[in-house]
Amino acid sequence: MLSFESDYIEGAHEKILKRLYETNLERLSGYGSDIYCESAKEKIKRACRCDDAEIFFIVGGTQTNQIVISSVLNGYEGVISAETGHVSAHEAGAIEVTGHKVLALPQKEGKLEAENVGKYLASFYADANHDHMVFPGMVYISHPTEYGTLYSADELKALSKVCREYKIPLYLDGARLAYALESPATDVTLPMIAELCDVFYIGGTKVGALCGEAVVFTKKNMPKHFLTTVKQRGALLAKGRLLGVQFDTLFSDGLYFEIGRHAVSLAMKIKKMLIEKGYRLFIDSYTNQQFVILEDSELEELSRSVKFSFWEKYDEEHTVVRLAASFATNENDVEELGKLMKGKGK
Amino acid sequence: MLSFESDYIEGAHEKILKRLYETNLERLSGYGSDIYCESAKEKIKRACRCDDAEIFFIVGGTQTNQIVISSVLNGYEGVISAETGHVSAHEAGAIEVTGHKVLALPQKEGKLEAENVGKYLASFYADANHDHMVFPGMVYISHPTEYGTLYSADELKALSKVCREYKIPLYLDGARLAYALESPATDVTLPMIAELCDVFYIGGTKVGALCGEAVVFTKKNMPKHFLTTVKQRGALLAKGRLLGVQFDTLFSDGLYFEIGRHAVSLAMKIKKMLIEKGYRLFIDSYTNQQFVILEDSELEELSRSVKFSFWEKYDEEHTVVRLAASFATNENDVEELGKLMKGKGK
Amino acid sequence: MLSFESDYIEGAHEKILKRLYETNLERLSGYGSDIYCESAKEKIKRACRCDDAEIFFIVGGTQTNQIVISSVLNGYEGVISAETGHVSAHEAGAIEVTGHKVLALPQKEGKLEAENVGKYLASFYADANHDHMVFPGMVYISHPTEYGTLYSADELKALSKVCREYKIPLYLDGARLAYALESPATDVTLPMIAELCDVFYIGGTKVGALCGEAVVFTKKNMPKHFLTTVKQRGALLAKGRLLGVQFDTLFSDGLYFEIGRHAVSLAMKIKKMLIEKGYRLFIDSYTNQQFVILEDSELEELSRSVKFSFWEKYDEEHTVVRLAASFATNENDVEELGKLMKGKGK
Amino acid sequence: MLSFESDYIEGAHEKILKRLYETNLERLSGYGSDIYCESAKEKIKRACRCDDAEIFFIVGGTQTNQIVISSVLNGYEGVISAETGHVSAHEAGAIEVTGHKVLALPQKEGKLEAENVGKYLASFYADANHDHMVFPGMVYISHPTEYGTLYSADELKALSKVCREYKIPLYLDGARLAYALESPATDVTLPMIAELCDVFYIGGTKVGALCGEAVVFTKKNMPKHFLTTVKQRGALLAKGRLLGVQFDTLFSDGLYFEIGRHAVSLAMKIKKMLIEKGYRLFIDSYTNQQFVILEDSELEELSRSVKFSFWEKYDEEHTVVRLAASFATNENDVEELGKLMKGKGK
Repeated sequence: MLSFESDYIEGAHEKILKRLYETNLERLSGYGSDIYCESAKEKIKRACRCDDAEIFFIVGGTQTNQIVISSVLNGYEGVISAETGHVSAHEAGAIEVTGHKVLALPQKEGKLEAENVGKYLASFYADANHDHMVFPGMVYISHPTEYGTLYSADELKALSKVCREYKIPLYLDGARLAYALESPATDVTLPMIAELCDVFYIGGTKVGALCGEAVVFTKKNMPKHFLTTVKQRGALLAKGRLLGVQFDTLFSDGLYFEIGRHAVSLAMKIKKMLIEKGYRLFIDSYTNQQFVILEDSELEELSRSVKFSFWEKYDEEHTVVRLAASFATNENDVEELGKLMKGKGK
Repeated sequence: MLSFESDYIEGAHEKILKRLYETNLERLSGYGSDIYCESAKEKIKRACRCDDAEIFFIVGGTQTNQIVISSVLNGYEGVISAETGHVSAHEAGAIEVTGHKVLALPQKEGKLEAENVGKYLASFYADANHDHMVFPGMVYISHPTEYGTLYSADELKALSKVCREYKIPLYLDGARLAYALESPATDVTLPMIAELCDVFYIGGTKVGALCGEAVVFTKKNMPKHFLTTVKQRGALLAKGRLLGVQFDTLFSDGLYFEIGRHAVSLAMKIKKMLIEKGYRLFIDSYTNQQFVILEDSELEELSRSVKFSFWEKYDEEHTVVRLAASFATNENDVEELGKLMKGKGK
Repeated sequence: MLSFESDYIEGAHEKILKRLYETNLERLSGYGSDIYCESAKEKIKRACRCDDAEIFFIVGGTQTNQIVISSVLNGYEGVISAETGHVSAHEAGAIEVTGHKVLALPQKEGKLEAENVGKYLASFYADANHDHMVFPGMVYISHPTEYGTLYSADELKALSKVCREYKIPLYLDGARLAYALESPATDVTLPMIAELCDVFYIGGTKVGALCGEAVVFTKKNMPKHFLTTVKQRGALLAKGRLLGVQFDTLFSDGLYFEIGRHAVSLAMKIKKMLIEKGYRLFIDSYTNQQFVILEDSELEELSRSVKFSFWEKYDEEHTVVRLAASFATNENDVEELGKLMKGKGK
Repeated sequence: MLSFESDYIEGAHEKILKRLYETNLERLSGYGSDIYCESAKEKIKRACRCDDAEIFFIVGGTQTNQIVISSVLNGYEGVISAETGHVSAHEAGAIEVTGHKVLALPQKEGKLEAENVGKYLASFYADANHDHMVFPGMVYISHPTEYGTLYSADELKALSKVCREYKIPLYLDGARLAYALESPATDVTLPMIAELCDVFYIGGTKVGALCGEAVVFTKKNMPKHFLTTVKQRGALLAKGRLLGVQFDTLFSDGLYFEIGRHAVSLAMKIKKMLIEKGYRLFIDSYTNQQFVILEDSELEELSRSVKFSFWEKYDEEHTVVRLAASFATNENDVEELGKLMKGKGK
């Protein structure tokens, strides 16, 4: 069945599986101390053009957010996030379970605005009672956002500036980073992210890996005994090679970026098709996720032959659905989709 | 280089890799809702002969212990464990970070004794001040233990009886369960474990999988909204198929047990060789881990050609090392080892 | 200096101090097991007309909120609160530090509206992804609210109805409960609260006690081993008599209600004076807290002779301040204030 | 009825109650910002001869231990304590609930031995797997211990030395500190404690106050935003004056020490009487707590006219009971006790 349900419905890019096969019987030490983890770290460091980068591989995204945020914050601090940010809305309380509040601010197309963050911080410190409140100790953004939107270089710089003014770290959740970096509508590069953010992660799970995210601390600021913290949170993989080999492959010969380009270019074709056929887009996305508003009757019919992801009810008669392209989506899938979607009487 | 460092130094059993390859491009829903997870659960249920079994796949062992223990205990309760139990000694405080105390009791060859547990519980409730103390809310055991030793059926029954008397659940950590079930020295079966324990896990990582453990709640007692709790702890894998396919393979045609038999039989050969050459065993293990006391000078020499796991210093001149066999250890490795170890002047 | 800074700027009502003196050398068992705690519980039970009431005395309000909420919620649940609720805004993350999210909803004059709560709950369960979100497990309201406003009996009934429909408890924070019960504008009684809420607390600290709050579980629903939980949170007072004697006194001869009446009647005089002099009230409060909008220049001058509590900036030239009356505020204080406040040119 | 049940069975020293009365209607700002808190801090600083001392008042002892330990430790660290230490055994998991392990070491008469602590620390860092273990991040001792015993100056110096060698803070729980400082068998002074420890607390609850403990950070090392942390743990008293006035009184004219002397001298009389009458002491205590081994038959008879604290069963026919003297115990009580206790056949 045709499916655009998400970018994690297939297994792994074949180059990754192949490499896992080839290295399978090599005898390697556990817990991330193997040569593939080392090699992958070096390649990522180079891709980030960041000599100070300290890198750690973690299995999943929520886990990564939980560990990074809880190990960087002080006990009396919370993390600022857009109210639609993944850590705020869709991680089942993974931040709060570590004892920290998510300080949710209003968003615009899934993004935090530097001006709003600045006002929030200024007003916090101006409040006579702020000692009875949770201190803002970090800013969390996702790029692309949960809505497939992107920060511009200027927006990212402005956020970074506010953070540095208040001496709190800027953390970027790059679960789908490849699709941001390879978007036709971006002026943000990986080295720029490494420069402007204090910590970020390069998502593997949603970019062709079986699992795995690479956390990058960019300012020699990896928390002390980070491995122990990762272990304590149950996130230290015995066969660390599984992550090392995957990231080593993703960062060899530009595979990570190639996957990004591939999926974004197919998503752009889907977008073009949707526009041409007169569908209303819910948001103007230039990454691998597209959001379209469908009549419920059409949605019902389409659902027999193609899988979407339900996003939200738009109104009584319409629904927003998400279509995602992945490393394994192909031209044929997009054509098939085009045939199935009748269009809005243009 | 020859290595007996652990049972997680190689990747995965080839049948598992093959199956991951074959299913790689199938489009499957995420978060464990795929057909392979379903199929694997059915097979495990049958292997346990436990119709009430509710099963959940989790990436790693420490994570599994953390989630099971914290979701089963009440806030005022702690978990009883042998002082050498993994949750007590080697998980970096993964239980405490969830707010619960590990109530460490003395051990005998890594095992908890039912009589000691009973005495502890009786004395707790007899203490006039027990309202100011952490309530014992669960008993944790590992099988095989961290020392490779095994509970007998009678010992397991006695522990189960004490737990039921005090109405607290018995939890068995089966990180290396296959090596217990296929030991020549056991009278404990998988269905017996399902009957006597309230929850246990079947370890995959150390038995030929890339990663993954299967938690089995045996009495229709899986905590409500367990998936949300797993998500909250950062342990819900987006590509749940990675665990489903692996466990479906492990429980097809008896592969899980076959791996167990293979590694234990090689470990028994190592043990026999060690005894014949006059080495002192640190503990009398009948599973895939063997513990031998080496002179430091011999250890230093051996270390040039073979990898062991340092266990502990025995005395000024001796060290205990661990040798583990895995799915990928072969007869040749054992022979090579035999040639390298000179023996104690026999 | 004249001060309306808060209702906790003086010590205790003289009857309380007197009773502490009289009972001081009696030898009583610790941790709340004394006769005064018992007697106070009986009196409170009668005042609530609630035979099923189970009562526990705790030192402070934030502590009470923390213990009640964390011991009632399941691990995967959060507590719904108005975004201005004390637990959401001014307890420094005391709920989050126990691992639970505060689910902040919009407020109207500090109050949650039953309709909004109902919509939130319906929409939560309608969301296909709610398993990845924090479950709403309790509704928290404060009465009076942080703005001195009050729920009507109908509003409280509507909230209680929504909670019962979704089978989640309704918790009322009564830090200043006496000022609600004795307001001229209320139709809510103490027995009504006991009936409609599952748990609430009767505030002592802000109603004439040195410290102390009385938690009332109304449906035989006090969490198991609650004393141990209180101990674990560091909130079990060794000399429990300090709380017992105070609440026994407050609930003898209607002292608690008398203090409420006294402070509210003086606050109403202040309100009348403010209105007559043409000041703008920030909110229309009928309890012991009044909120007035002052020109910054007048505020600066007044601050030399009278203490207010800064509430928030209203605009560039105005500030909202709070004036609170307590058991120790007297007619003379109010008259003095009247002389100092020049009025707005009426 | 005669009672030696504990040192918290009466209210407060009369000088304290008197002072609360005198200051009752003064209008003071809340949360510890009043003049009495300031004055008390100055007096304590002088008594400690420690200019760098930073002091905070907290209501109870368990709360104090919880806040100090959790705010000083890093997330990956636990606290070393004697297995009989209050934080280890009798605080219902108050440390673990903050996410930290109590690393329990063997004790001798309730005391930690510097040599054992040193060995533990050396062995921890020598362990190749210590990255998978809880790091020792603090040493906790109680003085007097839970058994009424005392560290000598040399013992305290040795512990302090080990801590400094490993760069971890030494924390002294002084719930009953006055009884240590005024013991006839001590060579440890308050300034010495301030010098050798990094943080300690001066107990009020068990030394004549209604409630209250004074935490002293001695090296300008009070954790940042400590007030917010105290608030977050629910331990910030609105009427902070209650603690300020009490400690200001305790540290005026040497009242704190006078109470210590008074109770210890009566306890010494009890001890002398017990020895003369041939009773066996369970431990050789020189503080206000005495522990005696009684035949169960005698205990039963005595229990009709005098209250003790049950400590533990000694053997089939004997029980250890604790007798404590307080600020309110008097010569007459001791004489009465002497008449009731028949002695062991002298």
